[in-house]
Amino acid sequence: MNYLETLLMEQTPTEEEQKKLKFIASDVIKKINFICKKENIEATPVEVGSVSKNTNLKSSDIDIFITFAKSYSVEYVEKKGLEIGHNVVKNATEKYAEHPYVSGYVDGIKVDIVPAFRINKGEKIVSSVDRTPLHTLYVNSMIEEKMIRDIRLLKVFLKSINVYGSEVSKSGFSGYICELIIITFGTFKNFIEYASRLNGKMIIPKDCKKEFNEPVIIIDPIDPTRNAGAAVSEENLSKLKLAAKLYVANREDIIFHARPVVKTDRKTLMKVFVIKKPDIIDDIVYPQAVRLKNKIWNIFHRSGFMPVSCELYVGDEIEILIEYELEKLPNVQRHMGPPTESNESLKFIDVWKERSELMRGPYIVGDRIYVDMRTQYTDIDEIIRMELKKMDIGKNLNQFKDEIKILSGSQINSLNVMEKFYSKYLF
Amino acid sequence: MNYLETLLMEQTPTEEEQKKLKFIASDVIKKINFICKKENIEATPVEVGSVSKNTNLKSSDIDIFITFAKSYSVEYVEKKGLEIGHNVVKNATEKYAEHPYVSGYVDGIKVDIVPAFRINKGEKIVSSVDRTPLHTLYVNSMIEEKMIRDIRLLKVFLKSINVYGSEVSKSGFSGYICELIIITFGTFKNFIEYASRLNGKMIIPKDCKKEFNEPVIIIDPIDPTRNAGAAVSEENLSKLKLAAKLYVANREDIIFHARPVVKTDRKTLMKVFVIKKPDIIDDIVYPQAVRLKNKIWNIFHRSGFMPVSCELYVGDEIEILIEYELEKLPNVQRHMGPPTESNESLKFIDVWKERSELMRGPYIVGDRIYVDMRTQYTDIDEIIRMELKKMDIGKNLNQFKDEIKILSGSQINSLNVMEKFYSKYLF
Repeated sequence: MNYLETLLMEQTPTEEEQKKLKFIASDVIKKINFICKKENIEATPVEVGSVSKNTNLKSSDIDIFITFAKSYSVEYVEKKGLEIGHNVVKNATEKYAEHPYVSGYVDGIKVDIVPAFRINKGEKIVSSVDRTPLHTLYVNSMIEEKMIRDIRLLKVFLKSINVYGSEVSKSGFSGYICELIIITFGTFKNFIEYASRLNGKMIIPKDCKKEFNEPVIIIDPIDPTRNAGAAVSEENLSKLKLAAKLYVANREDIIFHARPVVKTDRKTLMKVFVIKKPDIIDDIVYPQAVRLKNKIWNIFHRSGFMPVSCELYVGDEIEILIEYELEKLPNVQRHMGPPTESNESLKFIDVWKERSELMRGPYIVGDRIYVDMRTQYTDIDEIIRMELKKMDIGKNLNQFKDEIKILSGSQINSLNVMEKFYSKYLF
Repeated sequence: MNYLETLLMEQTPTEEEQKKLKFIASDVIKKINFICKKENIEATPVEVGSVSKNTNLKSSDIDIFITFAKSYSVEYVEKKGLEIGHNVVKNATEKYAEHPYVSGYVDGIKVDIVPAFRINKGEKIVSSVDRTPLHTLYVNSMIEEKMIRDIRLLKVFLKSINVYGSEVSKSGFSGYICELIIITFGTFKNFIEYASRLNGKMIIPKDCKKEFNEPVIIIDPIDPTRNAGAAVSEENLSKLKLAAKLYVANREDIIFHARPVVKTDRKTLMKVFVIKKPDIIDDIVYPQAVRLKNKIWNIFHRSGFMPVSCELYVGDEIEILIEYELEKLPNVQRHMGPPTESNESLKFIDVWKERSELMRGPYIVGDRIYVDMRTQYTDIDEIIRMELKKMDIGKNLNQFKDEIKILSGSQINSLNVMEKFYSKYLF
């Protein structure tokens, strides 16, 4: 038995666990049905998610959608959905994706109760959650018993190489596209062989006509205008291609057992920017953190501090690491003036004669006048603080702009982002 | 009287000096004629150069060409030319341009005796010196008395802005093209106004049809296929354009009296490479020194030491200054591997697993694998010495390759190249 199968065994729920999940789900559904009947609400509870399709791994949660008739208003559906949710799951909290929903624990199992509109295949959706019950119906109608194991195998494989999960911070493969993949390829083996030979984009089905820009294109069978694989990043597709190659070449050692090399004597400079994390979901915070990281990188680059690499960690706080080469800028920088033949050249000379920033020159190189001028700010902290002041760092991050901590030296040793930096490896 | 005219007065030879030059020249010519007659050599001495055209500045030397009939062999002309030269100029030394020639002092005045072939306009030349007597003839036939002063004015002007002289290390305007310019424009004033408005190349005459690549194109009247301005660099043309603008704008203060700003707290790093100068003429050494400077600059650039500027000084030795930003390379550099989807990717992983240079990774960014690898050499002196070993640094410089001194810190303070570096100014 190969190591992947060992992992599969470890992560496949026991019969007992599965029974418990089924029991809780049907109990919740019964309760919702009862309420809807009593209050004469035209709504149906539907179990969705991996448990409803038997494709779940261990420690899965239960997703119950309450699908309301399309005649109701969005406001009614949101309000009534939360009310019913709290009714059937005690001590639950309210969360927010596209709509508010209720999340809590029943008998130790996490249960999400999500209001949605009931639509049929081809009908216009109100929000993207409305599609989920149709996904479940589709998968359950197409799935064959023998595929269940291979869907779980694919999920375990993708989890091991860190590309499972459709959250923005993961940009990986969702459970739904794992199911679509096995429905299309029949077996895990077929798919992994396909992935090991794949060049360029992943396009499923092969003969798909609609064009998408994303690196992974998996046409959603219940809405062929939608790319179900849109969330997968190029990097994660790359990781899958490499892992598939390794798997087919019987190099499971590298996929599952290799340990990253850690040598810390890099003789570079490092700074970590620590920003408070606003209390909103990661899918919204993460892209703002990525953009901030890129902005800080660009300041280092533009100012001439020679950044070499960077890392982002989003935990309780946002940590942005920039590794760079130059400690301080020199006092001097070359400033290009006009061509000598232009009418600006005399003005340039007279202006610079008066300026205390002049360090050398003016002088001529080729067909232009130059001066060496004094650098205004030579310290990266100073430059960063100044540039941040004028900068929009993201709708939800702007409020913490003045509190950004700039750490370096021994202050950064124990930060999460440092661990992430040094443990960088293939998967 | 403007300052330029003061300079002209200072640099115009006195009547007495001019008389002395004429006397020495005609005496030397008499002696050569006597020898040729006696030995029955078919050769004629011709005075060339600025003295022969009355366009000389103070402390000029005398150039006498011995033009031999074309029926003689090159070997005979060279041998006989030297023999006659030594005969008429005692204690002279032999020098070498295209042919060997004799150079010495007569009554305190430097006299060069140069053998050449006698050719007529349109005839094929053997070496470029053969053209010189024709240049003299042409100028003397075209020049008007009133132009003499303006030719000297132009020379003084070009000398002040450091663009006079056709030596390779100067790449400036020769005396001959100063004469052609005044013959064409009539007066210094006309030319300087033209230069102050000039855009792009200088092309004289305006309606010249032949195309040349050089920035200054002055068709040689005695050979219209030749560009007499070929030696002038783009930079020197730029300097002339700017100086002309300043002159026309009555800004002589900047041309003649401005002093360069010197601020030495640049907070950069500097190294000076000192190479012995081979005992050959500057026109051959200088281009090799420039190429070596560029090669050293490229090593700094390629290795990541961020060079910011450089300077070359060719005196008794060759001094090459590189100013740069980074003291030492970090221990680490990113190394790009193959795309994950290529068949090289597994090989790359296995190779790097074994290498002690591996600092971090391998890891995936976008569609490729990377490793952070240990930098082999982090010290610029070490890198330079290593690269020089494999490098051709020029036919005449290679012999001194192993003796190159690399100086920095206080060792460089008193070097000529440093003075040149800090005194860099418009002209």
